[in-house]
Amino acid sequence: MIVRDRPHGLALFFVMRGSVLPSILPALAVNVLFAVVVTVLHGVFLDHKIEVTTAPFSLIGLALAIFLGFRNSAAYDRYWEGRKLWGEMVHASRSWARGVMCYLHSGDAPDGPRRRPMVMAVAAMAHALRHQLRGTDAREDLVRCLGEETVARVMERRNVPAALLQQAGQGLGDWLRSGRLDPQLVTTMEARLAELTACAAGCERIASTPIPFAYTLLLHRTAYIYCFLLPFGLVDTLHGLTPLVVGLVAYTFFGLDALGDEIEDPFGTQLNHLPLDALCVTIETSLREALGETDLPAPPQPERYVLT
Amino acid sequence: MIVRDRPHGLALFFVMRGSVLPSILPALAVNVLFAVVVTVLHGVFLDHKIEVTTAPFSLIGLALAIFLGFRNSAAYDRYWEGRKLWGEMVHASRSWARGVMCYLHSGDAPDGPRRRPMVMAVAAMAHALRHQLRGTDAREDLVRCLGEETVARVMERRNVPAALLQQAGQGLGDWLRSGRLDPQLVTTMEARLAELTACAAGCERIASTPIPFAYTLLLHRTAYIYCFLLPFGLVDTLHGLTPLVVGLVAYTFFGLDALGDEIEDPFGTQLNHLPLDALCVTIETSLREALGETDLPAPPQPERYVLT
Amino acid sequence: MIVRDRPHGLALFFVMRGSVLPSILPALAVNVLFAVVVTVLHGVFLDHKIEVTTAPFSLIGLALAIFLGFRNSAAYDRYWEGRKLWGEMVHASRSWARGVMCYLHSGDAPDGPRRRPMVMAVAAMAHALRHQLRGTDAREDLVRCLGEETVARVMERRNVPAALLQQAGQGLGDWLRSGRLDPQLVTTMEARLAELTACAAGCERIASTPIPFAYTLLLHRTAYIYCFLLPFGLVDTLHGLTPLVVGLVAYTFFGLDALGDEIEDPFGTQLNHLPLDALCVTIETSLREALGETDLPAPPQPERYVLT
Amino acid sequence: MIVRDRPHGLALFFVMRGSVLPSILPALAVNVLFAVVVTVLHGVFLDHKIEVTTAPFSLIGLALAIFLGFRNSAAYDRYWEGRKLWGEMVHASRSWARGVMCYLHSGDAPDGPRRRPMVMAVAAMAHALRHQLRGTDAREDLVRCLGEETVARVMERRNVPAALLQQAGQGLGDWLRSGRLDPQLVTTMEARLAELTACAAGCERIASTPIPFAYTLLLHRTAYIYCFLLPFGLVDTLHGLTPLVVGLVAYTFFGLDALGDEIEDPFGTQLNHLPLDALCVTIETSLREALGETDLPAPPQPERYVLT
Amino acid sequence: MIVRDRPHGLALFFVMRGSVLPSILPALAVNVLFAVVVTVLHGVFLDHKIEVTTAPFSLIGLALAIFLGFRNSAAYDRYWEGRKLWGEMVHASRSWARGVMCYLHSGDAPDGPRRRPMVMAVAAMAHALRHQLRGTDAREDLVRCLGEETVARVMERRNVPAALLQQAGQGLGDWLRSGRLDPQLVTTMEARLAELTACAAGCERIASTPIPFAYTLLLHRTAYIYCFLLPFGLVDTLHGLTPLVVGLVAYTFFGLDALGDEIEDPFGTQLNHLPLDALCVTIETSLREALGETDLPAPPQPERYVLT
Repeated sequence: MIVRDRPHGLALFFVMRGSVLPSILPALAVNVLFAVVVTVLHGVFLDHKIEVTTAPFSLIGLALAIFLGFRNSAAYDRYWEGRKLWGEMVHASRSWARGVMCYLHSGDAPDGPRRRPMVMAVAAMAHALRHQLRGTDAREDLVRCLGEETVARVMERRNVPAALLQQAGQGLGDWLRSGRLDPQLVTTMEARLAELTACAAGCERIASTPIPFAYTLLLHRTAYIYCFLLPFGLVDTLHGLTPLVVGLVAYTFFGLDALGDEIEDPFGTQLNHLPLDALCVTIETSLREALGETDLPAPPQPERYVLT
Repeated sequence: MIVRDRPHGLALFFVMRGSVLPSILPALAVNVLFAVVVTVLHGVFLDHKIEVTTAPFSLIGLALAIFLGFRNSAAYDRYWEGRKLWGEMVHASRSWARGVMCYLHSGDAPDGPRRRPMVMAVAAMAHALRHQLRGTDAREDLVRCLGEETVARVMERRNVPAALLQQAGQGLGDWLRSGRLDPQLVTTMEARLAELTACAAGCERIASTPIPFAYTLLLHRTAYIYCFLLPFGLVDTLHGLTPLVVGLVAYTFFGLDALGDEIEDPFGTQLNHLPLDALCVTIETSLREALGETDLPAPPQPERYVLT
Repeated sequence: MIVRDRPHGLALFFVMRGSVLPSILPALAVNVLFAVVVTVLHGVFLDHKIEVTTAPFSLIGLALAIFLGFRNSAAYDRYWEGRKLWGEMVHASRSWARGVMCYLHSGDAPDGPRRRPMVMAVAAMAHALRHQLRGTDAREDLVRCLGEETVARVMERRNVPAALLQQAGQGLGDWLRSGRLDPQLVTTMEARLAELTACAAGCERIASTPIPFAYTLLLHRTAYIYCFLLPFGLVDTLHGLTPLVVGLVAYTFFGLDALGDEIEDPFGTQLNHLPLDALCVTIETSLREALGETDLPAPPQPERYVLT
Repeated sequence: MIVRDRPHGLALFFVMRGSVLPSILPALAVNVLFAVVVTVLHGVFLDHKIEVTTAPFSLIGLALAIFLGFRNSAAYDRYWEGRKLWGEMVHASRSWARGVMCYLHSGDAPDGPRRRPMVMAVAAMAHALRHQLRGTDAREDLVRCLGEETVARVMERRNVPAALLQQAGQGLGDWLRSGRLDPQLVTTMEARLAELTACAAGCERIASTPIPFAYTLLLHRTAYIYCFLLPFGLVDTLHGLTPLVVGLVAYTFFGLDALGDEIEDPFGTQLNHLPLDALCVTIETSLREALGETDLPAPPQPERYVLT
Repeated sequence: MIVRDRPHGLALFFVMRGSVLPSILPALAVNVLFAVVVTVLHGVFLDHKIEVTTAPFSLIGLALAIFLGFRNSAAYDRYWEGRKLWGEMVHASRSWARGVMCYLHSGDAPDGPRRRPMVMAVAAMAHALRHQLRGTDAREDLVRCLGEETVARVMERRNVPAALLQQAGQGLGDWLRSGRLDPQLVTTMEARLAELTACAAGCERIASTPIPFAYTLLLHRTAYIYCFLLPFGLVDTLHGLTPLVVGLVAYTFFGLDALGDEIEDPFGTQLNHLPLDALCVTIETSLREALGETDLPAPPQPERYVLT
């Protein structure tokens, strides 16, 4: 995620970091080059003048506006839903920690060693989900939270976050059966685990189900045809300015399209993606603070305007 | 569901799999052919020049934009709601399994044989719902999950998913009366069954209630009239390019319309429909993993870019 | 509700059932006739040429697009919310039945006769709500579900669905006091009754609160003025085609408007309204199936494409 | 709230009740008068012809469409959310009454006198909220529901609805401590009170937080500039029809704007506001019917098409 | 937040307080000045006439409309979600107070001193969240609510609101273990704490996750290019009026853009931000009133139309 103030004035035009420009540069260059050729030839190919009035542009433009507007909203909704799901993980884990720390009856056995793994299981679950979504290796983070032994057992499972939540549930069941936790409060705590299960499934849903491919195809095709026909429609009235205007229009259309592609699956590591690393640090910090620990991880800081 | 990266450059124009082009080809061909005829005749039929300016197109286009935009959003919302309902089934079934595995009191009777059918009843319910939505035979999948005897009894009922959930409820009631499950945790587990009931009813709702037919009718009629009037409006300024432009406009409008038709009822087996087979495998895998089983089904893989 | 496949090709233009055409025919005929008169007179009334350029149409069209788009979404949202509320009634009643059938402790008294009226009270509530929304007489359906005596007592109340749910609550209270139902499960069952209460109040809300009248008025006025000014704006360029184009534009605008009027209050018996009869059969069937009955009502079938 | 069928044909143009016309008449008159002056002078002021083409109108129109569409949706969403909150109060109070009437254990003390004040406290809360939102005096309605003594004590509090709900909670606590209500059912009943608390806070939120003032300002300014520039843009092509068309455009824009102003805060007593009086009668009737009373208030009837 | 009636007539044009004009004045001035230069030179730079027709404006305008409409909705949704979260804090804290005051069993120890800190912990949490969001010092407000000693302990924690809620949870746990609060009611009260936890996390989410930077960049760039090209497109038809029209168009586009920037993060202290001070006073007043206190803070009043 890009974290920076909005640049002002001319500076605006020289910002590259976080811009979609790099990813659309090839298509844009081809498009502008083509416009230059059309301008130089005055739209005449093989002794044949290709004359396109502005009429087709407003007609295709209508469909294009619907596509772009729709896809844009759909992609941003997915981005924001992804962020909400991680926000729910933040508060579900804080409420989970409060439950573990506050509502136990004092039992015969000393309860110190038992509470920490229960709380940290949720931190581990957040790390595991992040690594699963990004296809990276969770081992290091999990070991820091839970220790080698537990991690070895858990990582045999295909769905590691679910395994960690089941382990937490097993702990609740032990407390229930030993009378350390009233059944009413087990239901409350289990509700937290169910919320975390729902967050994980929600993230899987967004990551595994793209916007229907046929939309993407229709949109790309229409945008490309539109922008490559454009020089023919403009050359007779704009003359030498044609490539400039074509470049501007193509920049906005290709840019909007590429941005949709980027934030549609917001859990990756591209510049405009969600800062899952930082969110996991927030969750782990909250949980360890609830345990009363004081050697907390440093708050995440953006590096060159980017929070990963 | 089509699962593939976005093709780049010219490749974009030759992708057929997942495109709506095949389903709109007949109407598109007729439309373009008609445009060719109009172009050849210069818009003169029976010695009478049919002259249509661009004015009607912007007027009808206004209504058309409202229709297309509305229908497009409504159809996608149904698609996405369908996906959300199946996502809820994923996490409700995981939480159900956690409940069965973690919160029972140890009773006198050995509890091994009882837990598995309780967990697998939910896997069977997912399969049954999928087959009900697609009108296929659920027997094979159900027998694999629950065994012949149970399935024979359950399939006498008209609504098989509801019957399976009622059977799971009966099991909860038995555990309640034998004291193996605290009533508080019965309420938690019953809440899971209620969620699954709601998911099934939500899917039935989407499958049985189309977007009001009058919308579909208005939209089709307006789009057809628009595209068949178009050659008359363009022939005087675009001359020989008329069929090309008419084809492009008709491709986007008919394509958007056909795509809406396809994803409006997203539970079928067309290319852009939801991958219910894969989702059922996910659910069954999660449940069997929660039971501690290790001979899990293979993760679903797309075949020629398609996940069913 | 119209249930039919989308007609193809020319058949599209001859479908009447489910179309809004019949309800807008008078206004449409007057509008086209007026366009014919304007065309014949070439826009000259009383020796005075009424000349309207296309400018006003794009200006008023802007406001009109906002109105139509807004009203269209608002009306469809009400339609779809109505459908969702009835979908919630379907699953709330199924979960209610599961509760009654599964979680009772066996008491001293034989429990056969008590369960059926408790389950069927919810079926009766659905029928009562449907009849209340449509202003028809609920007696016959209620008697079939609950018997003469109960119905006579309940129908003295002004709000019959609420009375039926209160009666079901009274039954829960009896089971609570006799120890046949744990208080935890009473809360679960009462949650079902609260959901049904909310569904009923939601339907009352939609039925009793139209879209603010001032919107309807502004929209009608703008649409009428727009369509009746239209011939003056088109006659100089389209000549003899004017009435045709005016008819097409008016058909889409009046049609969209009339459709909004129709589905704004979706609980009636017009062609595009919700099939409350079929939904009540679904609910009653589910409940009787949960009771183990086998002489179930026939599944509702559309008649001449219409499900009521 | 206006309750009337949609007028047809010419009658449409003479409806005043519920129209926004009266509130925009002054601005509209000034605008049309100005257009007449411009038309008479042919756009020439001080020997200087003010020539405005249609270009600025489509440019400013773009921004205006965004403003109007946005504000319109935002205002209607507030209206409809207000209605939903009151709908929730209807069903929360019905479920509250069911709870009071059904789930008490019979205690030693006769329970007749205790139930009624508990049920009616919620009716009083609805009345108190309505009077608070409208800035009127609640005393009369409260005394009818709860009697002089209770009301005197409650009205010392600044937030009367909250005080009434706290009193109801106190009653629940008494029943809890005397064993007349199981703690599980106290949680269910308290959930009803929490819903009512949320409804009250939601209404306060809508009433106290307008759409950001800067939007209103931008919208008003743009709409006024647009409509007062319009005669200059139209006079050269429409001549004598200019004031008529300006009037039509201004009517729709000012009307949409004024309507937004009206329904943005929907709890007042203007014609298109929500019928809080009628809703309170509905709530009180439901509660008294649940108590078994039969001398119920008359159902609210619209007076000259208006329900207050 | 600006709280004032809508000004009428000409007064409308002289309102500065709450307008976005001041923040866009520099860019606007540069733009208009540039338009003046273009007008004076008749678009001729270095003997070269720069001729731009209106075509590019409608093409870029299409993309611009999508950007502005999207960003506007997204920013307002964040504003309104922020307001909803604080509205939830209002009612969650009222329900929390009702729980503390109504559902305790009388214990051996006098309970006076214990209830107040439990209730006021939530008031302190609201103050702490406000100060955290605004980056100000919470000490003074916290000390007034909880006293020096508690505050010193709590403020050692990094996340003060979470620490305060954990402390409240500890109090609940004490009451649970001493039998003063039934476990069922502990779950109800803990649900309130979970709601408050969710509100705090929601506010953190909005404050820490801006709309993706690439959108902001694309929008700014497109709007600037559009407005600086505009004089070339208008000068040939509008002549001397060009700077005026450019100023109007730029005012609406830059204004909409700046307004989005302002309300995107609604928790600050700019004029159109949410009145968190007033909301905290409301929460504290409600809680102290529930405790029976009568020396309540004065209701917040806007100062020069602004509520902070």
